[in-house]
Amino acid sequence: MKFEYQNPTHLIFGAGTLARLGEVTGAYGKKAMIVTGGGSVKRNGTFDRAVASLKSAGISFVECDGVEPNPRLSSVKRGGELAKKEGCDVVIALGGGSVMDAAKVMAAAVFYEGDLWDMFPHGQANRRLPAKALPVITVPTLAATGSEMNSGAVITDEKTTIKSFVGGKCLYPKAAIVDPELTVSVPKDQTAYGICDLITHVTEAYFNGVDGTPVQDRFAEGVILTAMEYGPKAVADGNDLEARAQVQWASVVALNGWVQAGCLAPYPVHMIEHTLSAQHDIAHGAGLAIVNPAWMRFAAKNRPARFAQFAHRIFGIELKSADDMDAALEGIDRFEAFLRSIGCPTRLSECGIGDDRLDRYAEDTLLVAGNAEGQLPGRPAMTKADIVEVLRSAL
Amino acid sequence: MKFEYQNPTHLIFGAGTLARLGEVTGAYGKKAMIVTGGGSVKRNGTFDRAVASLKSAGISFVECDGVEPNPRLSSVKRGGELAKKEGCDVVIALGGGSVMDAAKVMAAAVFYEGDLWDMFPHGQANRRLPAKALPVITVPTLAATGSEMNSGAVITDEKTTIKSFVGGKCLYPKAAIVDPELTVSVPKDQTAYGICDLITHVTEAYFNGVDGTPVQDRFAEGVILTAMEYGPKAVADGNDLEARAQVQWASVVALNGWVQAGCLAPYPVHMIEHTLSAQHDIAHGAGLAIVNPAWMRFAAKNRPARFAQFAHRIFGIELKSADDMDAALEGIDRFEAFLRSIGCPTRLSECGIGDDRLDRYAEDTLLVAGNAEGQLPGRPAMTKADIVEVLRSAL
Repeated sequence: MKFEYQNPTHLIFGAGTLARLGEVTGAYGKKAMIVTGGGSVKRNGTFDRAVASLKSAGISFVECDGVEPNPRLSSVKRGGELAKKEGCDVVIALGGGSVMDAAKVMAAAVFYEGDLWDMFPHGQANRRLPAKALPVITVPTLAATGSEMNSGAVITDEKTTIKSFVGGKCLYPKAAIVDPELTVSVPKDQTAYGICDLITHVTEAYFNGVDGTPVQDRFAEGVILTAMEYGPKAVADGNDLEARAQVQWASVVALNGWVQAGCLAPYPVHMIEHTLSAQHDIAHGAGLAIVNPAWMRFAAKNRPARFAQFAHRIFGIELKSADDMDAALEGIDRFEAFLRSIGCPTRLSECGIGDDRLDRYAEDTLLVAGNAEGQLPGRPAMTKADIVEVLRSAL
Repeated sequence: MKFEYQNPTHLIFGAGTLARLGEVTGAYGKKAMIVTGGGSVKRNGTFDRAVASLKSAGISFVECDGVEPNPRLSSVKRGGELAKKEGCDVVIALGGGSVMDAAKVMAAAVFYEGDLWDMFPHGQANRRLPAKALPVITVPTLAATGSEMNSGAVITDEKTTIKSFVGGKCLYPKAAIVDPELTVSVPKDQTAYGICDLITHVTEAYFNGVDGTPVQDRFAEGVILTAMEYGPKAVADGNDLEARAQVQWASVVALNGWVQAGCLAPYPVHMIEHTLSAQHDIAHGAGLAIVNPAWMRFAAKNRPARFAQFAHRIFGIELKSADDMDAALEGIDRFEAFLRSIGCPTRLSECGIGDDRLDRYAEDTLLVAGNAEGQLPGRPAMTKADIVEVLRSAL
């Protein structure tokens, strides 16, 4: 176990904390660019409340709206240019994961010379990570990505439909204002997809991390058990603020590094899913609900004891031995059944995706995240044929 | 659930990471004050290795040695004056919790005007928290306090034998180099006391925090279960580096705020124990092993369901009802038996402490940590008579 950890983001959590946006932003700038998505924050009053808080702190702002659900490179460019032109000194992300991811890259784009896409594709020879960014304040309106308190962002180049990932110290938000009240208007399906997303963040670390991380195992299990306890309540009654708060807190800790510290895990399920949501109009969390159980059945053959532990500790399934494969598979079935119970799809056909492009998804996955041997890192590492097999099993 | 969290410390974890001390320190200064304790780091070679790393990075240093197990205000003053006189620009804490706590306050003392003790006693009218400190690098040689990655320090005023607490943003170490190899020479008893200390850090949050923190409950349980799995191995074989690493990682996360976030818990067991180790020559962790089970039996009457949950999730004890008091008490018995099994005392008499000063311990506890109503915050809040009762039950 050898690793480093540092997360400087100032987290402010709790119902009503949106009112502190002006005060918090004021520590970093006087003119903000507010990044938003499709307009739900306008319709439900969140935007007006954010603006009121900024005004009372004497902060002016410009808007960068219309960030797509799977945010595009062109939107990020547009945002970066706007912030530069308007002389903004702070960026506020008011929305879900897409908005937060886009806002981070916009903040870095202000200082980035040359082609923004050079920040992204893994493995490309001329990759240049961003070194500097405007301060970012995140205000998530959806419990899902954990982007509010980490240094990562996922962006799609719409010309090539390649979805890729950038991470860097300068992308950590200065502050995250996590107000569960902002999530009560999220519809049932998006709520469910967010729950799947947050759970998948920790299952990736749990199943793909190095051996010998017992504290992290327990933390991951804690996040999953909490999401499974409160998630269905949040889906059943969107106004259940207690359930919303617990799910949102679980989503923050699922990807702020607390669970992952020392696991050194790659994220194969995410990498495969990204190729689906880059090419099809599906929510990332819905895609994960399809890919994750299929991947788990594939990976369990390689690590039955780990999947048996999951079955035992999450679902209380009794083990006949430490590597009880029947128990492992029962755990995966139960997990898939949970995802279905909250309204997630678990088959590609439910999203209108057929078998005609499985090779392409696999190739794109390897293009973005493949290693020098042409395999997707994970436990086990996957060849193109492995990825196709997993996707085929999820048809 | 409403809270804030920010921990800027750069954590570097792993066997062999001591070799990075020079590189890490170099980012913060050119002349270091190295703070050490009773000399074990000199005898086992850790000091020489630290110095070699500093020298290779071109960093000069002065020494401030002899910090006591329960560090004294006079030592802190001496260190602050030395750092000032020598023009040190960074402070390195090479030792256990006492050394790290003392080093933090020394780093703040350099800039603090007036009486250092004004930083400390809770409730005093003229309390002034430190606003600025030299950068601190922590290098723990014992898995216990978690001081390496938090902003707290506990110091004893030897004139009054009052042990008190200071916390402040400026006291966060810039970096923590946590190298489990440095702990292999820790003797069995100190190893056991450290395990008790780290477990008590999370039981305080678990039993005294606000309601409705399911993620934090699971995290706390994860730390306890890991400490109970690997702790006995580290005690049995001090050279078991795997066990040492797991215990040390558990000790870091037990008090870096990850478990406590949102719990908003006071630390009554610590506050009571501090009066014991301020007045008697006992290790803090040994004192906790005495006070914690006694406190738990007292507090269980007030929150049987919470203690039943502890019994069930930590020891697998079946519950007849959610507030099964028999199960709750069995869990506490099992916890006390675990502490004894690794070599901790659980009775005051084992440390030569009798019943002649119980009133004084209770009064000092309330002096340092009492609220406006003259009670010790916790669940339940405790009167002087309650504290005496708990201590009497531990005679």
